[in-house]
Amino acid sequence: MSIDRLQKLILEKKNPTVVGLDPRPEYLPPDLLAQYVKPGAETLQDVAEAFYAFNCGLIDALCDVVPAVKPQSAYYELLGPAGVSALYQTVQYAKSKDMYVILDGKRNDIGSTAEAYSDAYLGRIKVGETELAPFDADSLTVNAYLGSDGILPFVENCKRFDKSIFALVKTSNPSSGELQDLFCGDRTLYTAVGDLLERISQDTIGEYGYSAVGAVVGATYPSDARTLRERLRHTFFLVPGYGAQGGGAGDVAPCFDQFGRGAIVNSSRAIMCAWKKSAKGDGSDYQEAARAEALRMKQDIGQVITIC
Amino acid sequence: MSIDRLQKLILEKKNPTVVGLDPRPEYLPPDLLAQYVKPGAETLQDVAEAFYAFNCGLIDALCDVVPAVKPQSAYYELLGPAGVSALYQTVQYAKSKDMYVILDGKRNDIGSTAEAYSDAYLGRIKVGETELAPFDADSLTVNAYLGSDGILPFVENCKRFDKSIFALVKTSNPSSGELQDLFCGDRTLYTAVGDLLERISQDTIGEYGYSAVGAVVGATYPSDARTLRERLRHTFFLVPGYGAQGGGAGDVAPCFDQFGRGAIVNSSRAIMCAWKKSAKGDGSDYQEAARAEALRMKQDIGQVITIC
Repeated sequence: MSIDRLQKLILEKKNPTVVGLDPRPEYLPPDLLAQYVKPGAETLQDVAEAFYAFNCGLIDALCDVVPAVKPQSAYYELLGPAGVSALYQTVQYAKSKDMYVILDGKRNDIGSTAEAYSDAYLGRIKVGETELAPFDADSLTVNAYLGSDGILPFVENCKRFDKSIFALVKTSNPSSGELQDLFCGDRTLYTAVGDLLERISQDTIGEYGYSAVGAVVGATYPSDARTLRERLRHTFFLVPGYGAQGGGAGDVAPCFDQFGRGAIVNSSRAIMCAWKKSAKGDGSDYQEAARAEALRMKQDIGQVITIC
Repeated sequence: MSIDRLQKLILEKKNPTVVGLDPRPEYLPPDLLAQYVKPGAETLQDVAEAFYAFNCGLIDALCDVVPAVKPQSAYYELLGPAGVSALYQTVQYAKSKDMYVILDGKRNDIGSTAEAYSDAYLGRIKVGETELAPFDADSLTVNAYLGSDGILPFVENCKRFDKSIFALVKTSNPSSGELQDLFCGDRTLYTAVGDLLERISQDTIGEYGYSAVGAVVGATYPSDARTLRERLRHTFFLVPGYGAQGGGAGDVAPCFDQFGRGAIVNSSRAIMCAWKKSAKGDGSDYQEAARAEALRMKQDIGQVITIC
């Protein structure tokens, strides 16, 4: 099972973290950006090529210590079609370095359109007699607001092509409670979403007890995370909100089970922009700075959970 | 206001409908597909070029009678980066024919990432001193599960660049009720979402009384649509579910106000695939068939609402 592969990679590296690849022009070392983008003649294509080069540098620096990357689709779509090419290339490059790739797209739609998204990111499209894999990520984030028939096409591809998904349950942003915390009968909406995920994923549970249908659970609401961890025994958690958004190691601890398994914590900006805080400050050491921050994060989380 | 422009186009053409551009290889006339895609040597790039040619043909045939198109991003992403190029080109071509372009992406994320999506589809990205518009659609569909700070970055660009959005409220699919119909206190979740949209859009109301923040309300649940129409006085409705999904003219009628305004009804497959039901059946008349079906739909809806 794909989720077992993620858990194994985490255990091998003793590091339950994923690096968000969410590039913005200002996150790139100026000299690297300048190799691709010419002042006064900027194009989205040139920025996209710079993003890809930056991502490759990060992946090279991190792939032996970090098990997974999470490219956020929005930052590539922001460069139009050229950016989506950079996203595609980034997915393939990370996979070639044996990293688990969670494509953060938060896709959602009804039946046949959900199938199209599912086939785009996790599956294949058949044209004539030929089957082609458009993105072929290991995992995709999705939004469950449309109910089970918006999620099941993704679950189908999880089974068919050995993939996983993470559905939004309790997000890390300040206004996440406006809808997610509403009480629907005796449980919150986010609990209802979590229960739905557990229900539709029972036949995808792997050797560590976790299913192919994970949940996004923000580190910024640790007591909610604790409640969810106890309730959703088979649901792997993808945990945003550590670092730049304010969550610390103590806040992510409730997302893990008693073996230190069942969750992976994301950090994006702190790693991508680590070079801005290094002594040099010009970005020439962006790879070393990213690696040092990734190791610091590993150690920080290792102080509150023991992985076994 | 952008939403006024949509309403004006509808009034000019006396046609409150939008054509979904959701191409799939099997929707294309075989001869058209064969011009681009070679059996045994199919590529996503070739299919994408065929999609764009098909879309241009449909837009040419429809632009004087239909006010808007709604390309569904999933079907382009399904072709990888080449498909996203075809999406970009389709948006630009439809705009060049004065059609209003609602990009159906159902995007959603937290603060800064929602900003990136918003800038990608409705706004600009600044690189150096240059501002570039990646997609520049007129409107985007979004998912509100993350609460107001996931929606406000889109509202900002609606104001800044004169655009609109449509947020999922009550979707047309069979399982839409699993979460959306849950009672949260004295109202359903979908009503809570609708109320949220009304609240954050008060300063974007245009001359017809509708705001830049619309709602997706499925034709397949007409009594829910009636309740929402009465409650959400300033919210323009984008209505899927007519035709292939089972909704008829009587089912979409409750989405309109007493002047026959405030809503637009989508049809995708029935128009794109109209050629399959024509006497020829080989697709050589796909443009005429699409136009005839669009006019039939206009007349069908015109029998139950009067636009004034």
